[in-house]
Amino acid sequence: MPEEKNVRSIDSASQQMIEHCAACGFELAWDRYEAVSPQCDFGVLGLCCKNCVLGPCRIDPFEEGAQRGVCGATAGTIAARNLARHMAAGAAAHSDHGRDITHALLLTALGKTEGYGIKNETKLRAIAEEFGVDQADKDLNRIAAEVAEVALADFGRQEGILRTVARAPEPLRKKWEKLGVTPTGIDADIVRVMHATHIGVDNEPLHILRTGIRTALSDGWGGSMYATDFSDVLFGGPEPIRSVANLGVLRLEAVNVVVHGHEPTLSEMIVAAAQMPDVIKKAEDAGADGIQLSGMCCTATEILMRHGIPVAGNFLQQELALATGAVDAMIVDVQCIMPAIADYAGRFPTRLISTSKKAAFEGIKHIQFEEEHALSCSKGILQEGLEAF
Amino acid sequence: MPEEKNVRSIDSASQQMIEHCAACGFELAWDRYEAVSPQCDFGVLGLCCKNCVLGPCRIDPFEEGAQRGVCGATAGTIAARNLARHMAAGAAAHSDHGRDITHALLLTALGKTEGYGIKNETKLRAIAEEFGVDQADKDLNRIAAEVAEVALADFGRQEGILRTVARAPEPLRKKWEKLGVTPTGIDADIVRVMHATHIGVDNEPLHILRTGIRTALSDGWGGSMYATDFSDVLFGGPEPIRSVANLGVLRLEAVNVVVHGHEPTLSEMIVAAAQMPDVIKKAEDAGADGIQLSGMCCTATEILMRHGIPVAGNFLQQELALATGAVDAMIVDVQCIMPAIADYAGRFPTRLISTSKKAAFEGIKHIQFEEEHALSCSKGILQEGLEAF
Repeated sequence: MPEEKNVRSIDSASQQMIEHCAACGFELAWDRYEAVSPQCDFGVLGLCCKNCVLGPCRIDPFEEGAQRGVCGATAGTIAARNLARHMAAGAAAHSDHGRDITHALLLTALGKTEGYGIKNETKLRAIAEEFGVDQADKDLNRIAAEVAEVALADFGRQEGILRTVARAPEPLRKKWEKLGVTPTGIDADIVRVMHATHIGVDNEPLHILRTGIRTALSDGWGGSMYATDFSDVLFGGPEPIRSVANLGVLRLEAVNVVVHGHEPTLSEMIVAAAQMPDVIKKAEDAGADGIQLSGMCCTATEILMRHGIPVAGNFLQQELALATGAVDAMIVDVQCIMPAIADYAGRFPTRLISTSKKAAFEGIKHIQFEEEHALSCSKGILQEGLEAF
Repeated sequence: MPEEKNVRSIDSASQQMIEHCAACGFELAWDRYEAVSPQCDFGVLGLCCKNCVLGPCRIDPFEEGAQRGVCGATAGTIAARNLARHMAAGAAAHSDHGRDITHALLLTALGKTEGYGIKNETKLRAIAEEFGVDQADKDLNRIAAEVAEVALADFGRQEGILRTVARAPEPLRKKWEKLGVTPTGIDADIVRVMHATHIGVDNEPLHILRTGIRTALSDGWGGSMYATDFSDVLFGGPEPIRSVANLGVLRLEAVNVVVHGHEPTLSEMIVAAAQMPDVIKKAEDAGADGIQLSGMCCTATEILMRHGIPVAGNFLQQELALATGAVDAMIVDVQCIMPAIADYAGRFPTRLISTSKKAAFEGIKHIQFEEEHALSCSKGILQEGLEAF
């Protein structure tokens, strides 16, 4: 089926695996896409509103059927509501991740984590100076704790504007002010979108979008920016580095462990644990030539840019990697993890392990990852891969 | 059309107006409901997911078509995601309202508002004691400011649990703890639902619902509870009171002003302004026998329970009230305001006035209401009704 292959992927490794899955009868995202197709055009166009239980309402784009929802919302209102809620959900995902990194920095500074430390003093000191945190006569952990507290306050901010707005060039800040989109508080701006898009609240499309844009800026200049800053502080800033990528990084001779998801707090510790002599010895004792760690999707880039760990694939390759049967353990936390991967829990000896309090999966074993015991947790998780080999 | 009348409303005043609207060719919510019917059954059943742009995906409830979304989400996952986002939106609406009341209390305590004051000292002092706010040698405003600050911190809380959880009976608190649904922070819990329900995060239906229940509790024991507490402090606790209700409260001889929406910060000041001698005189000079103030929907209950102001109608009667042509001004803020009311801006001399920064309406005049100038704003808004009479 060469034509379909090309439609599904331009990557030859993926093409091979897609063909292999078809032969094995493994259902993939592309198959499920076909099963749900044709997709609902009202939904695709953003003209379906199910924000309240008077609905679902949908607007006829050909202007033959209904032109307003039960409340009177027009196509513009409904499309703006839908887009703004997408913005709120995206901001929530990125920023809730940023909150956890900030919290990990705080816990580390207070000596409450295992395995983490301040890896980038220069960046920490620069941020401390920017935030007006007095550094005289304070050790690095004390400074880090105060910086983290300042940032956490921006997540919960109830008055004024985000501290990091000051980083934006003045013309940009003025533009934000003029449009009324200056970010105020990371969490509160998300909440305001959810409120504004509820029935009978904001109904003017451009006004709704401005509320959406504000939360996008709260994320970009707040939640996500703090995530980047404090990931660099905790794990070191990224540098140009050489590595390899694609499904071919999986090796038959090795214990293949794939880290998939989003949180560097998890992946960094898995990297550290996988390099420990006692862990490597266990792999060798099991008959492997070592542990082949690789990343999948977002978390892959975290450990790629800091450690040169190979990338096993992107979002659409998560099922393909598992379909090789070569993965001994896939460790997941949050974001971009298809629940469909649970299909592989029974097909191969592959161990699938979820690790975050925020995400549970039907048919996937859960081992709670805790920053307080990060290294020992990571060793325990790796043990699953060793046993599966 | 007696049969249809009965279907649309059991209330005879509404039935008369629905008939009248049909004769006049005015479109009502019931007409728009018919226009969007049959409603999408996937949406009604909660089996349509448009949380990410791989979708929209929908599950065939008859098990003939697709049983999973593109990511692999099952009917259970999708329905739980949808329900949890409804919970987040409801919590956001109530709690964002609670935030504003809390903020109004703070501004009032700092002497920055016009017309508000501490009306219920007993309740304020009881809350201050509960919150551990020291009251010795402090005037009432100082106490109110500190109480408001404590409550605002719960909206933005990043660690620990909500302060008001302590109000719950111990067996209930234990149940919450056991289920992992103890509310943590009002805004943050909403954000966590938006994160958990995004693609590839939480996929286990009951686990998703628990995250939803947590935000519902954050609202009920946090945002909404603070809204009630501080409304009572600012405007007085409600008491049994006698009043009248329904569309018949509108009077031909009076300047009819309807307050519709949600915020007592607005409606209380409209009540105060409407009772001022200079405003009443203006109404009389215009040939009216006075100002007939009435409430619509949620805000109606606020001024009903505190002042006995008549209720002109509920959510479904907002268009009916306007269709009488007797309303000189309808003043709206947020929540439950059908954008369809703008249809009446051109039909009658009726003035429609939006007042909240959070909500704009196409075709409705906006007069910004500000707590800092609450009384003068309210007089300006009432002037619209006087002019329309």
